[in-house]
Amino acid sequence: MRELTVTTDRHTQLLDITSQVRDAVGGASGAAVLVYVPHTTAGLTINEHADPLVARDFEMAMEKIVAEGWGWQHIEEGEENAPSHPRASLMGPQVLIPLRDDGELALGTWQGIFFCEFDGPRTRSVYVTVLA
Amino acid sequence: MRELTVTTDRHTQLLDITSQVRDAVGGASGAAVLVYVPHTTAGLTINEHADPLVARDFEMAMEKIVAEGWGWQHIEEGEENAPSHPRASLMGPQVLIPLRDDGELALGTWQGIFFCEFDGPRTRSVYVTVLA
Amino acid sequence: MRELTVTTDRHTQLLDITSQVRDAVGGASGAAVLVYVPHTTAGLTINEHADPLVARDFEMAMEKIVAEGWGWQHIEEGEENAPSHPRASLMGPQVLIPLRDDGELALGTWQGIFFCEFDGPRTRSVYVTVLA
Repeated sequence: MRELTVTTDRHTQLLDITSQVRDAVGGASGAAVLVYVPHTTAGLTINEHADPLVARDFEMAMEKIVAEGWGWQHIEEGEENAPSHPRASLMGPQVLIPLRDDGELALGTWQGIFFCEFDGPRTRSVYVTVLA
Repeated sequence: MRELTVTTDRHTQLLDITSQVRDAVGGASGAAVLVYVPHTTAGLTINEHADPLVARDFEMAMEKIVAEGWGWQHIEEGEENAPSHPRASLMGPQVLIPLRDDGELALGTWQGIFFCEFDGPRTRSVYVTVLA
Repeated sequence: MRELTVTTDRHTQLLDITSQVRDAVGGASGAAVLVYVPHTTAGLTINEHADPLVARDFEMAMEKIVAEGWGWQHIEEGEENAPSHPRASLMGPQVLIPLRDDGELALGTWQGIFFCEFDGPRTRSVYVTVLA
C-alpha cells in the first residue's frame, strides 16, 4: 500500500489525481489497482478529465443533490459539514481499475481519477494498492 | 467467503458493522477486504461512526434524494419499496478496504463500515472476502 | 481481462448484462470478479432483474436526481450530455462480485448486473477481470 498526499483549495473540489496514481503503481504487476480515501467527507470517482468544466459541473451538481438546508442533526462546533458526509458516500470511498497486461491502468480515453473534496480546503491522504 | 447476518429495525437504517467485518477477517493475510450485500434494497457505505447523528442524517438524506412520490412503476403486492432500489444502488452493493501489512483494515480514524437498509426491518446477509 | 461489447438503444437505459458477465468469467477460479466500464457517461450497478420495471424506475430516478436544467458548463458542440457525467459517477464505474467456491458469481436471488447508459444510443465496452 502506497500513500499519496493531496491538497485541496476549495470547500467542494474535484481534483485530477490520475498521474499521481499512475506513478504510485509504477508498473507493478497485478490484476487491478485499488484507490481508497481514509476520510469521511471526501470520496473518489472516475470521469472525464479532458474538459475541466466537467469537474466544475460535478461540484455544482453534488451541492444540489445534497442540499445545505435539509435540517441536519450532525453539528460540530465551528464546522458546518453535515452535507459533506453523504456527498462523499455518493461518490464512494474507493475506485478499482483493471490493469492491462502491460501494467498500464485500463482507463478509457476520456477517463481520469478524481479526488472529490467535500469539506476543504484540507490536506488529505489517498491509499493505492495493487491487487493480484 | 464468510457470511454475516445483520438484523435491521427500521425502514431506512444505517447500521455500523465495522467490528463484525473485522472479526470475519480475523487477521487473514491479503491486500484488501471485499464486503458485499446480496440484496437489491440494501447497500454498503463507509462514513463517520463517531457521532451516530451522521448515520441519522444519511437516512434523512437518502429519503430526500430519492423521493416516495415520483410515480414509480415497480409495484409489489403489499410492498411499497420501489424507491428502495435506487437508494441501495446509490450507496452501492460493495465496499473494498485495503489491508495494512499487520492485517488490520486500513480504515481512517473516523471511518466505520455501514450496512444501509432501505426496506427494513429485515434479516440480511453480508459477505466478507479477502483478496490477495 | 476480457472485453464485452454492449449496444444501447435509448438515451438513458439500464441493460441487464448478467449472463454476458457470467460467460466471460466462464468458471475461472478466483476470489472476485471486477466489472468495469471505460466510459465517462455510463456506469454499472447491481439491482433487481426479475421485474424489468425496476430498471425503468432507475432510468426515471437518475434523470430526476441530476436534472437537465441545472446550468451546466460542459457544452460539446452537437451534444447535450453534461448531466450524463454525474449520473454515471453516481452509479459508479465498477462493481465487484465475490466468487463462490464452485466458481459461480455470489449474486443474491434477485440481483442482476446492469450496464447503465446515460448518453445513448451507443456501442460500449465492458471489461471483466477475475481477482485472486
